[in-house]
Amino acid sequence: MNQELKNLAELYKNTLLENIIPFWSQYSVDWQQGGYFTCLDREGNIYDTDKFIWLQNRQIWTYSMFYNRLEQREDWLKIAENGAEFLAKYGRDEEGNWYFALDRAGNPLVQPYNIFSDCFAAMAFSQYALASGDEGAKEIALQAYNNVLRRQENPKGKYNKAYPGTRSLKSLAVPMILANLSLEMNWLLSSNQLEEILSQTIQEVMTDFLDAETGLMYEHVTPNGKHLDCFDGRLINPGHGIEAMWFVMDIAKRTNNLDLINQAVDVVLNILNFGWDREYQGIYYFMDVQGHPPQQLEWNQKLWWVHLETLVALLMGFDLTGRPECLEWFQKVHDYTWGHFSDSDHSEWFGYLDRKGEVLLNLKGGKWKGFFHVPRALYLCWQQLKTLS
Amino acid sequence: MNQELKNLAELYKNTLLENIIPFWSQYSVDWQQGGYFTCLDREGNIYDTDKFIWLQNRQIWTYSMFYNRLEQREDWLKIAENGAEFLAKYGRDEEGNWYFALDRAGNPLVQPYNIFSDCFAAMAFSQYALASGDEGAKEIALQAYNNVLRRQENPKGKYNKAYPGTRSLKSLAVPMILANLSLEMNWLLSSNQLEEILSQTIQEVMTDFLDAETGLMYEHVTPNGKHLDCFDGRLINPGHGIEAMWFVMDIAKRTNNLDLINQAVDVVLNILNFGWDREYQGIYYFMDVQGHPPQQLEWNQKLWWVHLETLVALLMGFDLTGRPECLEWFQKVHDYTWGHFSDSDHSEWFGYLDRKGEVLLNLKGGKWKGFFHVPRALYLCWQQLKTLS
Repeated sequence: MNQELKNLAELYKNTLLENIIPFWSQYSVDWQQGGYFTCLDREGNIYDTDKFIWLQNRQIWTYSMFYNRLEQREDWLKIAENGAEFLAKYGRDEEGNWYFALDRAGNPLVQPYNIFSDCFAAMAFSQYALASGDEGAKEIALQAYNNVLRRQENPKGKYNKAYPGTRSLKSLAVPMILANLSLEMNWLLSSNQLEEILSQTIQEVMTDFLDAETGLMYEHVTPNGKHLDCFDGRLINPGHGIEAMWFVMDIAKRTNNLDLINQAVDVVLNILNFGWDREYQGIYYFMDVQGHPPQQLEWNQKLWWVHLETLVALLMGFDLTGRPECLEWFQKVHDYTWGHFSDSDHSEWFGYLDRKGEVLLNLKGGKWKGFFHVPRALYLCWQQLKTLS
Repeated sequence: MNQELKNLAELYKNTLLENIIPFWSQYSVDWQQGGYFTCLDREGNIYDTDKFIWLQNRQIWTYSMFYNRLEQREDWLKIAENGAEFLAKYGRDEEGNWYFALDRAGNPLVQPYNIFSDCFAAMAFSQYALASGDEGAKEIALQAYNNVLRRQENPKGKYNKAYPGTRSLKSLAVPMILANLSLEMNWLLSSNQLEEILSQTIQEVMTDFLDAETGLMYEHVTPNGKHLDCFDGRLINPGHGIEAMWFVMDIAKRTNNLDLINQAVDVVLNILNFGWDREYQGIYYFMDVQGHPPQQLEWNQKLWWVHLETLVALLMGFDLTGRPECLEWFQKVHDYTWGHFSDSDHSEWFGYLDRKGEVLLNLKGGKWKGFFHVPRALYLCWQQLKTLS
């Protein structure tokens, strides 16, 4: 058992250090114009040069995080800096809100219609400030964080297409990301502010979005946590719910709140029981809680991040509780993930498979897949496996 | 040959009259609160009650059109009226713009962010005014038509998320729908206005959006018809391009413009050669013209409307030009369509198949599939087949 866990730890570590990081360091950095190329085909060739703010910021974050936690390698810091300087210059509008997309040179393409751009900017510049000691980066991080706080009640602002009042729904994504982000930025926040936000968001997630009856995490509920029988109100996003649960565990372990940790593990297992494809294996992307046809045509596809975040949640759950179901599920999801997403002929992993596990998009990076879920999950799994062994 | 065409004409006619229309007449009409249920499962059960303006208006249009062109059946007019009264009351905001979605009772859910709601309203109320003689309906049709004309340069209005100036692209959908809509409304427009709009839109589609080199129809080009190497600029939507070509043929046949008709047929055949799945049959939903991974995760799925609009285009092309390729392709697409979308156990057709032709969503109607493409295409194919035989 111990040797097995050690071997697994080596596998996650070596894949991260020898396969994933080198791929992005080699192919994705735009040394000429700044920032990163994320649209990379199977072999690392660039097929599109637009720069999507989520992924630009996530790449700054991930390189900075490795510099801070793994090894102070100059090349990683340089790559982070190459993104941070580009984004500090071009990423925001005049009011300091983060655009959604830029062209290669940094000209804005898509307006700041979405606060998650600001979330990832806050994460990125906070980690980068830690790594570089850059005071300007710290200010940018705090500005972005305050944007998120200010805009959390109406995340899409004037681009919100919902008619006010008829059907009010709030999204799991907002408290979930706010909890994770606040923990990330704890070194920049007062401890009062941090604890208040953490307890508030955890409470909201585990009360309003968690359904007591099914034990499942809903994507959308009314402002006071009730269900609505409509497409959005019936939506389950298994990967999202599971990722939220490891954010909760991560926060709960600071205060050794074992009840909360066990509750989060329960939810992970409930979601897996509900969202696992018993016929073709893997975890579905979207589901209707009542079994009706979902709106999302991609509902039965198997996505890399869903599986990787699940591996993190299961190992964290096992590490913190020792519950054997976590390890059993981990083995099953590990086998599926390594058997289908990793690419035996080239570096980095596939992102999008059809229901049966065949490659749907022959890419390693795109508009939504960048240097984030794969390296973060491999790193976190490696760390958990190391502790366990 | 003649007997074969006669048999086919019977098949299309009988399926329309004995299978498709009865399904919607029986299951979709909300006699209590007005309008229609479109979210219907395989057997016709309602699984969601929201009312999407595109589909509400399209259903009014289709029932009215059958009343006007097929048979003056009172039950069809009553069903059209049930939608028209509901939408006249609840469909528009205070400025007369058409919402995108309402709840069952008619309360607005989604703002008027999209001019296609107005397009389908103009079509619907124009046909319904013809059928019912209702003067109010005529006014509503003209108001909606004027909304479309007024908003065509900025179809999404304040909900447009594109940053102005960096990358200007226009969409095929706008001139394409405007041409079709204007022809629909010819009885309400001055012949000068009609001819001007038709020649302008046809010119725009066949010059700006049609690529001279590949002979393919692009979804997005710059305002002066150039290509841009970005996701939107590389996008081909085969079904959309083919549907646009039968709109063009429909317009060209009024003036017996055989050159234009032949050009449209060429484009249909080019798109089919490009967009046909040689491994699993059927027509792809989205493609990147350079073969890069498209953004749309549903890119390789097979959708009902794509195949049905292709059948219309091929029969219309054959009817107008006698070119044998049209009939050869028709046979191939007919076999795929009837073999995969039609449901041998229940009424109406499936809408969404995976790449291999297996049912992806077990529904007969939803947010985007209503009483429109199937009945319109069956009707038009039946008419063409009757002429041909």
